[in-house]
Amino acid sequence: MVNYPSKLLEKAVEEVSRLPGIGRRSAMRLVLHLLRQEKEQTLALAEALATLRSEVHYCRECHNISDSELCEVCANPRRDHAMVCVVQTIEDVMAIEATQMYRGVYHVLGGVISPIDGIGPRDLEIESLMQRIRRDNIREIILALSPTMEGDTTGFYIFRQIQALMPSAGEEIQDSVEGVHRPMPKVTVLARGIAQNDELQYTDEITLGRALAGRTEMK
Amino acid sequence: MVNYPSKLLEKAVEEVSRLPGIGRRSAMRLVLHLLRQEKEQTLALAEALATLRSEVHYCRECHNISDSELCEVCANPRRDHAMVCVVQTIEDVMAIEATQMYRGVYHVLGGVISPIDGIGPRDLEIESLMQRIRRDNIREIILALSPTMEGDTTGFYIFRQIQALMPSAGEEIQDSVEGVHRPMPKVTVLARGIAQNDELQYTDEITLGRALAGRTEMK
Repeated sequence: MVNYPSKLLEKAVEEVSRLPGIGRRSAMRLVLHLLRQEKEQTLALAEALATLRSEVHYCRECHNISDSELCEVCANPRRDHAMVCVVQTIEDVMAIEATQMYRGVYHVLGGVISPIDGIGPRDLEIESLMQRIRRDNIREIILALSPTMEGDTTGFYIFRQIQALMPSAGEEIQDSVEGVHRPMPKVTVLARGIAQNDELQYTDEITLGRALAGRTEMK
Repeated sequence: MVNYPSKLLEKAVEEVSRLPGIGRRSAMRLVLHLLRQEKEQTLALAEALATLRSEVHYCRECHNISDSELCEVCANPRRDHAMVCVVQTIEDVMAIEATQMYRGVYHVLGGVISPIDGIGPRDLEIESLMQRIRRDNIREIILALSPTMEGDTTGFYIFRQIQALMPSAGEEIQDSVEGVHRPMPKVTVLARGIAQNDELQYTDEITLGRALAGRTEMK
């Protein structure tokens, strides 16, 4: 049982040690660092955290984090708004943006369906995705979800939901606003295979099996 | 080069990644956690850090962290004020308090003499220690410093400073206030030896050599 020489210190250590992956010892080390550095620096940290939490927005279209109602990607007319990449998290958007290979827009689900964690479709931004598909002229939905059981389940659930938008016979969906019919968007998933610079001998058998099955011809 | 979807997010990640041992990726993970948890929780963290940095005191006697001008140890009449344990940091005070084996008071130097880091005696609370020795009736000074070159150097420096307080011939020091002479305090250092539960074969040779030289008789 640690006896803190200061209640303020104890409170700060307690709050910091609530952070994931930070135990009491690390929290103590961090807090003492904050005490020793310039006062302005510590106040700037506290301010940045409070401001972020109080003033942050989530884009009304794609639900990515944003400083305004519409995020920079959704507000950009030079992005391809007919191509929507469905991801789990904000980090995934940042990872894909970092590739500089994608010119479409996003839709952040906020997670994946996971019965074990009590997360169902209603806890995710799936209904808002369906609204976008009904409302906008979307050519392609890219499911960029985790290559896990939960990611695959979520992707399949969304695919079935999109299919359900189609009139029973044709291959068109009814526009929710104008009542016109339009083609169902193409639904794609990210390629599975061995990762760049991974060593073949250490690649797990499912990945290797899929990489074999999905082999492409050299040209 | 990461492109942040939000300036507030970028600012928060930047501030968090200034913390020691926390890189950009960890900072991002922590900040997104702060975004996802209850707003009150994040504001409580920010508040605790800002309050700590703004309102914390350092004990005017021992320089330990404190919520008031005099820390709980120094303000406690049941502690032995004639025994002063000299330590480097607040953490050291907490570690010694946790042993529940010490009933004296402390003096926190704030570090050790380290020419490489540009830390000299004047950067530490050494002069204030000398003032306490001149002013108070101190029976024993325990040097509880790191068992390193810097710790040893600092301990030896303090020992010489205390010796210098003595009149050239006798073994007494002159009281700064009342002008009376009193005996020089005993100066002790922590025992060096093998640590509890350490394996002998992995103990370094200096430690093992000192443990041999300082062996005690079983009774």
